[in-house]
Amino acid sequence: MMSHQQHTELLNTLHECMEACNHCYDACLKEDDVKMMASCIRTDRECADICGYLESAITRGTPYVAELASVCAKICEDCAAECEKHDHDHCQQCAKACRKCAEECKKVA
Amino acid sequence: MMSHQQHTELLNTLHECMEACNHCYDACLKEDDVKMMASCIRTDRECADICGYLESAITRGTPYVAELASVCAKICEDCAAECEKHDHDHCQQCAKACRKCAEECKKVA
Amino acid sequence: MMSHQQHTELLNTLHECMEACNHCYDACLKEDDVKMMASCIRTDRECADICGYLESAITRGTPYVAELASVCAKICEDCAAECEKHDHDHCQQCAKACRKCAEECKKVA
Amino acid sequence: MMSHQQHTELLNTLHECMEACNHCYDACLKEDDVKMMASCIRTDRECADICGYLESAITRGTPYVAELASVCAKICEDCAAECEKHDHDHCQQCAKACRKCAEECKKVA
Repeated sequence: MMSHQQHTELLNTLHECMEACNHCYDACLKEDDVKMMASCIRTDRECADICGYLESAITRGTPYVAELASVCAKICEDCAAECEKHDHDHCQQCAKACRKCAEECKKVA
Repeated sequence: MMSHQQHTELLNTLHECMEACNHCYDACLKEDDVKMMASCIRTDRECADICGYLESAITRGTPYVAELASVCAKICEDCAAECEKHDHDHCQQCAKACRKCAEECKKVA
Repeated sequence: MMSHQQHTELLNTLHECMEACNHCYDACLKEDDVKMMASCIRTDRECADICGYLESAITRGTPYVAELASVCAKICEDCAAECEKHDHDHCQQCAKACRKCAEECKKVA
Repeated sequence: MMSHQQHTELLNTLHECMEACNHCYDACLKEDDVKMMASCIRTDRECADICGYLESAITRGTPYVAELASVCAKICEDCAAECEKHDHDHCQQCAKACRKCAEECKKVA
């Protein structure tokens, strides 16, 4: 069985998290108070990029799922913690996607 | 409406194409006759990477959907043409995903 | 001769541009008036990512140097135009790196 | 001082390693005995991609240098070990770049 078939749930979760983080990044840059969102913009990019990276790596059969998922889980948790500080819908949705993704990542880390 | 909401079908297709290309890459490297698959391995990586790139770029609201999709369409077509030369299931499935993705990319290019 | 040896100057320029854009992104997020820098933050990320992508693609012998460089040139020009609006040192330096990179990209596009 | 200024040596080493791995990947796919190089092709891509990822992440001021460098060091070591099995110039040069990069990564991990 190939790596990407073993990790269907993780792949879906990573994908949703990448989308939620990039959406939150985009929306934060359109907010009136961008300064308040600076940390969120930064962590959204970090989280979107590592989720996208891990997703692609799993589908190509990387032997480093555990190592990468461990880093990804930490970044997802930090991003969730940052997003939870803000009431915007995009932040709240992003926080949920990050929490879920951190949990899935920990299962394989 | 945000960019990623305008491009739901394209995003799904890019995602499936990225997965199919990376799966094909992985499977080609496990074939008995790897030499015959060398061009396929190479184009699979090119295609998986640009599809993943464009997918991520759309979700962050890139203003360059058309330009990137134009390049992506060309790479998808080349990857489809290469995969169609081979009878392996992973190649045939990858070719289909690439053809579909090329079509979706052309709609926005 | 391999692709990365034919493109030494382009590779150096892409690399400097990626660094300048990511540095500018980082510095913009630390400015007092982040809102004024929102477009710059966004275009810095777009430009850094495509420059890094093209750089990596050239070193792996991609057959798509011309197509990717054409998109990259456009993004570099847009990023330069945005950065030139701002007096911050990081913006001015980024604008220069982007102008130079756009020129190098056009040579192969 | 910004993150990318603290990590000049690491950035250079990551960059050289990314280039060496992608060059080795490209050259392996052109060898007569591609099958013998299958593991090398795979690990070259893994290593090139994580080195490029970390390099870009450092220049944008990522707070995750240590975590990412730890994963990168492991992948560099595995890639070096694989490349050292082969006499091709590109493999030997890649192995050296990977060993050096693993050392630099460990300093910050």
